[in-house]
Amino acid sequence: MTRYNYINAKNWFSKPRVICGLMTGTSLDSIDSVLASFSVDIFGRHQFEIIEQHKSEIPDKIKNLIHKIIKSDSSISELSFVNSELSRLYSLSVHSILKTSNLLLSEVDAIGIHGQTVWHEPKKNDDNINQHLGHTLQLGSASYLANLLNIPVVGDFRAADIALGGQGAPLVPIFDYNFFLSKTEDIIMLNIGGMSNLTHIPANATEDDVIAFDTGPGNVLIDTFMQKYFNKPYDDLGFHARSGKIIPQLFEILKKNDFIHQSPPKSTGRELFNEDYISSLINWSGLEKFDYNDFVCTLSEFTAWSIAENIIKFTNPKGKLIVSGGGSQNLFIIDRLKAYLPKVELFLTDYFGIPYDAKEALCFAYLAWRTLGLLHGNIPTATGAMRRAILGVIALP
Amino acid sequence: MTRYNYINAKNWFSKPRVICGLMTGTSLDSIDSVLASFSVDIFGRHQFEIIEQHKSEIPDKIKNLIHKIIKSDSSISELSFVNSELSRLYSLSVHSILKTSNLLLSEVDAIGIHGQTVWHEPKKNDDNINQHLGHTLQLGSASYLANLLNIPVVGDFRAADIALGGQGAPLVPIFDYNFFLSKTEDIIMLNIGGMSNLTHIPANATEDDVIAFDTGPGNVLIDTFMQKYFNKPYDDLGFHARSGKIIPQLFEILKKNDFIHQSPPKSTGRELFNEDYISSLINWSGLEKFDYNDFVCTLSEFTAWSIAENIIKFTNPKGKLIVSGGGSQNLFIIDRLKAYLPKVELFLTDYFGIPYDAKEALCFAYLAWRTLGLLHGNIPTATGAMRRAILGVIALP
Repeated sequence: MTRYNYINAKNWFSKPRVICGLMTGTSLDSIDSVLASFSVDIFGRHQFEIIEQHKSEIPDKIKNLIHKIIKSDSSISELSFVNSELSRLYSLSVHSILKTSNLLLSEVDAIGIHGQTVWHEPKKNDDNINQHLGHTLQLGSASYLANLLNIPVVGDFRAADIALGGQGAPLVPIFDYNFFLSKTEDIIMLNIGGMSNLTHIPANATEDDVIAFDTGPGNVLIDTFMQKYFNKPYDDLGFHARSGKIIPQLFEILKKNDFIHQSPPKSTGRELFNEDYISSLINWSGLEKFDYNDFVCTLSEFTAWSIAENIIKFTNPKGKLIVSGGGSQNLFIIDRLKAYLPKVELFLTDYFGIPYDAKEALCFAYLAWRTLGLLHGNIPTATGAMRRAILGVIALP
Repeated sequence: MTRYNYINAKNWFSKPRVICGLMTGTSLDSIDSVLASFSVDIFGRHQFEIIEQHKSEIPDKIKNLIHKIIKSDSSISELSFVNSELSRLYSLSVHSILKTSNLLLSEVDAIGIHGQTVWHEPKKNDDNINQHLGHTLQLGSASYLANLLNIPVVGDFRAADIALGGQGAPLVPIFDYNFFLSKTEDIIMLNIGGMSNLTHIPANATEDDVIAFDTGPGNVLIDTFMQKYFNKPYDDLGFHARSGKIIPQLFEILKKNDFIHQSPPKSTGRELFNEDYISSLINWSGLEKFDYNDFVCTLSEFTAWSIAENIIKFTNPKGKLIVSGGGSQNLFIIDRLKAYLPKVELFLTDYFGIPYDAKEALCFAYLAWRTLGLLHGNIPTATGAMRRAILGVIALP
């Protein structure tokens, strides 16, 4: 704390702070916001209390522009526009969540924004040449939002870790560690989003004992198939998977996927698990030979298996498995995880007061709170960074 | 100061702070850096002392990528790369300036970066619809640089003012006001860069009495002609202009340019004064009929006239005229300004201890110092913003 002696972290932590966290994921389905209060208890432990949760639509015009940007198909003018326009949309989300919560803007201490990732290219593990640092780009301007709302905003959380040679991800482990560490049993926090990632917190762990990595696909394979062959966004409650049966030869091929067997640290994305990947597998299996539900069943089984396989191989498969993300609502996947992992006790984060679809926004509210209190936000054993860093940039209007 | 009571501005201003300012302009000719110490004297006045000045080349590969980005010709991966790579180049500039200054990195309190503007589209004056806010985009990540060097970095200075409905420019006036205000005489600070802009500080002015605006072309017309017809980057010392004579019919047409006669606030750029503009005028005049030096002379005369005309029409043309920027080294322009403005006393900023090519980098060091002390950086009468704002984002590694 001596380094920034003009910034008084002690004062920041001296009372509960209300932070609004805003998350827009790669699926572009919504702007997720959470309003929460963070405080430090008399034992120095961090506490949170969720005040309100909210979802806003991203207008189609902006969604389309973001897709254009990601495909390198946009003009620089459009990219610059989206960078500011996202901040304007975030400001509307903040107004909405405040309205339902009956809080005033002046009662909010700060806002944390993840921003919209349009490129993420961390340093490769085999690339040790200093000139080839990684890079990442999230759109949504912290300064712009701070001035629209006249409230401090923290954003751009991933750049610091990448500059330090880390993957810039996952950033959730510091939240998981602070709020789910148990003295007596192992905890695995699993988020099933587009991809699946987990944080393993051994019983009584120090921060450096925490490991975290992507296990492979989350909903991405199932959703892609559902959208193409059923014209539905996802397999609601796992209904289609439960109506089908496993295609054994397809399941066996899927299980051979290299990524699943790689040792952590590892991270993946739509570069690997995408429509092309599914199409090639379906063509190989023969689409006409099976019921569409059989494909959903097999892809869902593979998704559950790949998560379980990673847990068995690379963590200690006992204690509590606590699941969040859209995939936690797929009953087929949850049932299969239970079957694959008989020794773990499975919960949803909802059981601990965190709605399954609010966890990421809550994490970025927490990270903003940490940054404003000058605490680091990354866990180097999880990201691979050379050291801890206070994440993000602070805009004070 | 009560708002961010966990940030102690009093402490920040309690001793001199060493700040490194880094500027990369639209001409992409170099990374200009200045190392300076800022302090508050016993009367509460701000003081600066330049410790060192430095210029680094921007590698051709990066220059070309920036040109591609500006022309909407780059991939999103390239744009994301440049955003981080510029920070890496800035970190090398900081190491270089420290080496020549014999200061240690640990003796630097903070860095201020302007970043590389790749788009600047403020709200138009006639656009009062809230949905059409302006936007601006500077590449170069503050968080990335802060973590490469392990020093606080302030960046992204223009977004706040734009979010508040301002032009996001000029940001130099707060520097001019604090360091050049006179109790007894009017001061006009003139920077002749690619474009020319001025800050008018009436004698004994309050901050709200300050006006600032672009007068029109700086070196842009001359440089463009020199590069095309003489294969030289610029007219060194105004030699070519002094060897030529004015082409009266061309000068008369140039003087009719609308922008010159517009009332401030106004700002311009390469959208208006560019190669097409010159080509059309030359074609109209007939290139073969005149000596090339006559064109340089006429374009230089017009540049000086347009500055003087704006000073006469929109400010009080007496007191001191203090000139900086590359154009201040063009003796033809300086001579013509003296002739057009007989009642003003003309100086270069060098006379006041600021090298003509260091002023902008020094301004951004000053703006960073202000931001870290929670002082606003914009002057709403100059930018058109609806209120004062603490500019930029702060990255604390």
